[in-house]
Amino acid sequence: MNFKVYVTSKKIDKFHLKAIDEYKKRLSRYCKIELIVVKKHSELFKLVLEKSYKILISTNRKDLSSEELSSKINLFGVNGNSDISIVISDNKGMEYYESISLTPMDMDLGLQTVIMFEQIYRSYRIINNEPYHK
Amino acid sequence: MNFKVYVTSKKIDKFHLKAIDEYKKRLSRYCKIELIVVKKHSELFKLVLEKSYKILISTNRKDLSSEELSSKINLFGVNGNSDISIVISDNKGMEYYESISLTPMDMDLGLQTVIMFEQIYRSYRIINNEPYHK
Repeated sequence: MNFKVYVTSKKIDKFHLKAIDEYKKRLSRYCKIELIVVKKHSELFKLVLEKSYKILISTNRKDLSSEELSSKINLFGVNGNSDISIVISDNKGMEYYESISLTPMDMDLGLQTVIMFEQIYRSYRIINNEPYHK
Repeated sequence: MNFKVYVTSKKIDKFHLKAIDEYKKRLSRYCKIELIVVKKHSELFKLVLEKSYKILISTNRKDLSSEELSSKINLFGVNGNSDISIVISDNKGMEYYESISLTPMDMDLGLQTVIMFEQIYRSYRIINNEPYHK
């Protein structure tokens, strides 16, 4: 599975990037995952792979439980959706296949990205029947 | 305002502690806030200040928006509740005045703690009519 996680943000705090890197390392045995930070939402149009399965993360959308995300990722594998684009942005305006929310709270986009990575990691642990903590 | 944030966890990842430290630094101009990590839930009984306003953070409880948290913190100030104990734990069993949820997802307790600090910081920025980013 190839995940590309796009974040629209002028600046992501260094300590959030550190946390993302750590989860990326842990995820390396399960999937390919890449973080792409763009300054402006419009840049996404050129970047996001047309044929990928697109998910928009924003507040005030349908909440998702860890189990739901996990079975979704599992299904992607079964259905042959191997390219997943996840867009974390305050701005709307792209046609996404799906729109989900990580939290009902307004939250720093860098921190939302950390949560996204943690939840994908958690999903793979669930899928593989592995305990969360090593 | 004095916040004490208690987390029941055998181990909190170093990169989460780094993020917590960063928010603690940013919060220093608004309040006193301290992180206390305990190995076992039972240790909390001795530690948590009896007269403090106690809040339990757990999943599957009432969700809270950033605005709600902000006006809550504002009210604490008005009502003279200057000692706030926030307990982040998977284990129940203490009598808390209030029980709220940061996210509907299962999530690493270290990461939940980062979110808690970020949301308190966000609350103070809202209360003081300051933009979130410096």
